[in-house]
Amino acid sequence: MKQIHGGVTAPKGFTAAGIYCGIRNNPNKKDLALLYSEVPCQAAAVYTQNKVYGAPITVTREHLVNGTAQAMICNSGNANTCNADGVEKAQKMCELAANALGLSPDDIIVASTGVIGMPLPIEPIAAGIPALAKALSKEGHTDAVEAIMTTDTKPKEEAYQIEIGGKTVSIGAMAKGSGMIHPNMATMLGFLTTDCAITAPMLQKALKLAVDDTFNMVSVDGDTSTNDMVSILANGMAQNPLIDQEGPDFDAFLTVIQEICASMAKKIAGDGEGATKLVECSVHHAPNTTLAKAIAKSIITSSLVKTAIFGADANWGRILCAIGYTEGDFAIDAISVSISSAKGEIVVCENGAGVPFDEALAKEILLQEEIHMDVDLKQGEGEATAWGCDLTYDYVKINGDYRT
Amino acid sequence: MKQIHGGVTAPKGFTAAGIYCGIRNNPNKKDLALLYSEVPCQAAAVYTQNKVYGAPITVTREHLVNGTAQAMICNSGNANTCNADGVEKAQKMCELAANALGLSPDDIIVASTGVIGMPLPIEPIAAGIPALAKALSKEGHTDAVEAIMTTDTKPKEEAYQIEIGGKTVSIGAMAKGSGMIHPNMATMLGFLTTDCAITAPMLQKALKLAVDDTFNMVSVDGDTSTNDMVSILANGMAQNPLIDQEGPDFDAFLTVIQEICASMAKKIAGDGEGATKLVECSVHHAPNTTLAKAIAKSIITSSLVKTAIFGADANWGRILCAIGYTEGDFAIDAISVSISSAKGEIVVCENGAGVPFDEALAKEILLQEEIHMDVDLKQGEGEATAWGCDLTYDYVKINGDYRT
Repeated sequence: MKQIHGGVTAPKGFTAAGIYCGIRNNPNKKDLALLYSEVPCQAAAVYTQNKVYGAPITVTREHLVNGTAQAMICNSGNANTCNADGVEKAQKMCELAANALGLSPDDIIVASTGVIGMPLPIEPIAAGIPALAKALSKEGHTDAVEAIMTTDTKPKEEAYQIEIGGKTVSIGAMAKGSGMIHPNMATMLGFLTTDCAITAPMLQKALKLAVDDTFNMVSVDGDTSTNDMVSILANGMAQNPLIDQEGPDFDAFLTVIQEICASMAKKIAGDGEGATKLVECSVHHAPNTTLAKAIAKSIITSSLVKTAIFGADANWGRILCAIGYTEGDFAIDAISVSISSAKGEIVVCENGAGVPFDEALAKEILLQEEIHMDVDLKQGEGEATAWGCDLTYDYVKINGDYRT
Repeated sequence: MKQIHGGVTAPKGFTAAGIYCGIRNNPNKKDLALLYSEVPCQAAAVYTQNKVYGAPITVTREHLVNGTAQAMICNSGNANTCNADGVEKAQKMCELAANALGLSPDDIIVASTGVIGMPLPIEPIAAGIPALAKALSKEGHTDAVEAIMTTDTKPKEEAYQIEIGGKTVSIGAMAKGSGMIHPNMATMLGFLTTDCAITAPMLQKALKLAVDDTFNMVSVDGDTSTNDMVSILANGMAQNPLIDQEGPDFDAFLTVIQEICASMAKKIAGDGEGATKLVECSVHHAPNTTLAKAIAKSIITSSLVKTAIFGADANWGRILCAIGYTEGDFAIDAISVSISSAKGEIVVCENGAGVPFDEALAKEILLQEEIHMDVDLKQGEGEATAWGCDLTYDYVKINGDYRT
């Protein structure tokens, strides 16, 4: 596996574009993205578990029932959620894109991210789509990734290559998270592309497995957005032997999907609203994987842990506390906890109790931009890693500001 | 039921005291409280559900196995949790208090609140207890409530009187929450006293019922402390007919316990770390009470809802989002949401979708210090209320500051 330049257009046959169409008030921020494959694709997606979900989720889910799609349209600036006419508008977006591309509306994946409960203005989208379709290009990935950003401070995209069945297969991705220009919620969107030849069921399987260990292990503020979605399009243009079952080829494909999803997940966590630090928490030797994941996410999500990391305070009691209130059956008396970064590592807790450590070194470790926590429960084989960020004044500022 | 002056010493036979003994570095902040009944009491308590819990929890639980106690000692400044010698130190606190009061150590309730994982210095406690015992008085409730405070900005105490079986029964309470002078976690402690004649099992029953709907419905930051405890001492000096079963007398007693616990819970929420506003959320017509409670707590706990309230932003989409990610089976398409305060009420959502509202009035409503949210699911009889606060710069400041 090797990392290559580019994003969603790195695989053969994919082009992308991003423009400002007028959903936002700021013409300097693109707000409409389009992604297109020159041939039909096998397609898969995973969606938010929130019972309140956006109209684009409803429409995309319908369009992917047959496991095929050929393009994706996404706006930022408005979530198209909790609107009486939301589904109608999301369908309209697909129709407009389909018309411009000569496709059927049910070959379009649609996504939206932004403020909830504000009617989506369809006029700027309708007016913008012809120019958007015309702008599709191999270089367009940078415009597309910009157009899906909200309070993101950095674009998030990446691409990899692997060999499958003697052919070079490329996988690209772009993602956004978290926040809104009119701040709202940490919607996470991920769009993956590949020229791999793979069936829709195997694509869905790979995506689900990868997302469970990556995007689903990110927390910025514990709020599960109504619009979260990760989708993947596979157009088969790499001409590798079709992956239609598990085996070495599927495993190779899965490995690179996991790698790219993990990388996107870390970028999202590190660019969380107001974040100054990426926090990675690995849990070892939990009774099982489910508990390891729950404990890692509990730590990453704790406001008290997050503020301590913001303050570069090795206040490990808060880590123990967050472990302790995780639901499930496990013992706490053997737990050890260590904290590390580029500046070194300190053990702060052994056998469930504090051990003396060098506070000056702890401070130096915690002043770095990437902090790692290792928690060892010493009672099983469950392993998991979760990613989050610190809780800062700027998180409050971004989310406390008035919408208008 | 009528509210009377005072706190834990309002019931007959109770005295209290609070002093600075030297656990903290600041001699202007009292750090050791004592509560005493001149006759033995029936006793009950409820404890944190955190699997990591303080040594005082272990010791108090043992001491209350027989359902009796006669005094309570509590320090602030150190949680005595995750320390290898924690239980030994907590037992020592009981012994010291018992010696000073001429009681058996197992008649003492012990509590601690403060930083986790720092060895508790027993010397200042040993040195301070004689003076503390000597200071016990009817007026001592104000010193005692001050001594249990951490980052609390206001003392929290209250007392009520009711008639039971022709006798005047008094109930007093003091509570603290949330935070630490070396900021740590939102430990919640509540101490109730009464001169009611009631058996320990009925006392436990009343306390449990009251706490479930009050203290357990408060969230400041979603972090369940290792040291939470609410206890009650009943010395029988009101000479009412002994309450040993359910019936009108028990109901009357329960009503006042619920009232005082609700009042304490609201005081804790409104004085949450960094809080500028008390937020009360009532859920109506949920499928059942369990779901109503879960939804109310989900809303109250959401960082995005809390920052929106700090910013006086009627961003109701975040309320819907927090409802939507509550675990459980319920429908969202009939939900209505309204927001109110002393300045009026606005409906922001009906049938799961936004409705136009007066933004200027919404802002005015949300600029008040007490905000109420009503959520109606229209699908059952479940009702619940939860209390929380806004998420502010000061929460980050208080919890991001370095411990030393």
